[in-house]
Amino acid sequence: MADKDTSKPTFAVLGTGALGGYYGACLHRAGYEVHFLCHTDGPHIREHGLRVESEGRWAETLRVPAYDDARDMPAVDVAMVTLKTTDNHVLPTILPPVMKSNGVALVLQNGLGVEEQVAEIVGADRVIGGLCFLCSNKIGPGHIKHLDYGKLVFAEFTADGTPGGITPRLERAATVFADAGLPIETTDHLRRARWMKLVWNIPYNGLSVILQATTDRIMNTPATRELAQQLMREVLDLAEADGCRIPVAFIDDMMRATDRMEPYKTSMMLDHKRGRPLEIESMYSLPLTVGRTRGMAAPRIEALEKLLQYLATNTRRSGDK
Amino acid sequence: MADKDTSKPTFAVLGTGALGGYYGACLHRAGYEVHFLCHTDGPHIREHGLRVESEGRWAETLRVPAYDDARDMPAVDVAMVTLKTTDNHVLPTILPPVMKSNGVALVLQNGLGVEEQVAEIVGADRVIGGLCFLCSNKIGPGHIKHLDYGKLVFAEFTADGTPGGITPRLERAATVFADAGLPIETTDHLRRARWMKLVWNIPYNGLSVILQATTDRIMNTPATRELAQQLMREVLDLAEADGCRIPVAFIDDMMRATDRMEPYKTSMMLDHKRGRPLEIESMYSLPLTVGRTRGMAAPRIEALEKLLQYLATNTRRSGDK
Repeated sequence: MADKDTSKPTFAVLGTGALGGYYGACLHRAGYEVHFLCHTDGPHIREHGLRVESEGRWAETLRVPAYDDARDMPAVDVAMVTLKTTDNHVLPTILPPVMKSNGVALVLQNGLGVEEQVAEIVGADRVIGGLCFLCSNKIGPGHIKHLDYGKLVFAEFTADGTPGGITPRLERAATVFADAGLPIETTDHLRRARWMKLVWNIPYNGLSVILQATTDRIMNTPATRELAQQLMREVLDLAEADGCRIPVAFIDDMMRATDRMEPYKTSMMLDHKRGRPLEIESMYSLPLTVGRTRGMAAPRIEALEKLLQYLATNTRRSGDK
Repeated sequence: MADKDTSKPTFAVLGTGALGGYYGACLHRAGYEVHFLCHTDGPHIREHGLRVESEGRWAETLRVPAYDDARDMPAVDVAMVTLKTTDNHVLPTILPPVMKSNGVALVLQNGLGVEEQVAEIVGADRVIGGLCFLCSNKIGPGHIKHLDYGKLVFAEFTADGTPGGITPRLERAATVFADAGLPIETTDHLRRARWMKLVWNIPYNGLSVILQATTDRIMNTPATRELAQQLMREVLDLAEADGCRIPVAFIDDMMRATDRMEPYKTSMMLDHKRGRPLEIESMYSLPLTVGRTRGMAAPRIEALEKLLQYLATNTRRSGDK
């Protein structure tokens, strides 16, 4: 729809994992110039290409520019921040080299407080937030498997968490992703959208790690199905204390969406299996801190946080029965 | 102390596991007549004896009468109920044959509601409750390893949960166990004592199963150390709602006692490893129900209950990292 830019914007994917690899591949296939920053997969992707399989839809091995070092990358219009929040300490090093002076950072990470970290580096007026409703796994070096969903929600970042409006640049960004075949929406209230995302992430990421369970098994066991709902309810309480009211009916929406999902291993479950750091801080600790400063407790979420903190620093003692 | 019975009371151990095997062995060694009902270890114990090792104190293989069927056992003065609460459906079969007409049932199980089940079979006036503060594991057929502690607290059962006083028969029972070298106390308030026991059992049994962790690792990780304290606090809330006030300082006592323990695998952790049923009902669900009927929530305990219910019916999906 709408009038497309004649000079297509250029992209950098900062973190070529399940999420960055998939969205970057979609843009690349739509004819956009996309540069991929890799953690360890650079040599593999340069030699064999980036393999992306969107289950039941398409599968392709893409020849894309892949980098090991941000300083080797060209400056682009849109720098997509897709690395794990646990690696955000590298942002001051990798963001500035890849951003044109009028470029924007599109933050596609999970949890609260992620745009704030990027804004400190590039300035609040150059940050757009993006939420990804995506089931995608990295299953090998340079090998992404997109399982389901993929919707994006874009919103302007504001330093004080108030609605940022629907700006022309936000609409332009959304148009590009729509052009790449991706379902996309915009919203004027990033903070509220982040909380809505947490309504799913908080129960399923935590429970999947603690119980080593895919989403279907969490949903099909009455006890954990109820616990997931109770955790969602606590996220709504925290959000409301933070000035972001989410209707209770949204819990039913999330339950139904999860029921419809293919059995899914959350990103945190995969991180845990691979011995990688868990995104506990942005997904649990910061939301809890926000609630605490506003006098709102979330005891079940706090219990989950603490169980995850244990598992992040200890190995389970023995193989399960 | 005090005057000892000249005609020594006789005992039946109904469930020769980590707990019943140890206490029964102590009584046997002190010269009491003790009959052991076994689930599967009867043939082994009849052939090889009952092996009990009290670490750093004594180790002995005892020739004791071991039975596979309660109907083969003589009626005794004191029937010690030491089986898992998950097996309590057999009580109507095994209790009546072993009890003299003036005999008492001594209930040494965990959780709430256990004496009530026994009282339904033998009458409330024939029930004494006993709490065991014991670190003991069954490590093989007819093979018990006593690790630490062992204190007992005896109290009269009353159908309405009010204090039952310190009766002469309670003191006599306590004297026998003291005579067997066991640290023993009496209390007039069984219900309160049961709640006090839960202050330890609820955090450590649940966390040890969920995290596959021994007590030392739960205590040495700041996150789970704090969670254990928060769970204890919730037990105090439930107890108070049930009319049993426990001083907050008791939490510190339990924390210190756990710090001093040898690294310990809780009974529920061992049950889980062996694929045996977990005592979720008496240890979690019933206390939560009591709280709920009195308007008191315990969200962290409830979350633990639900995680345990998941693990009781599902196998963790894959070996842990």
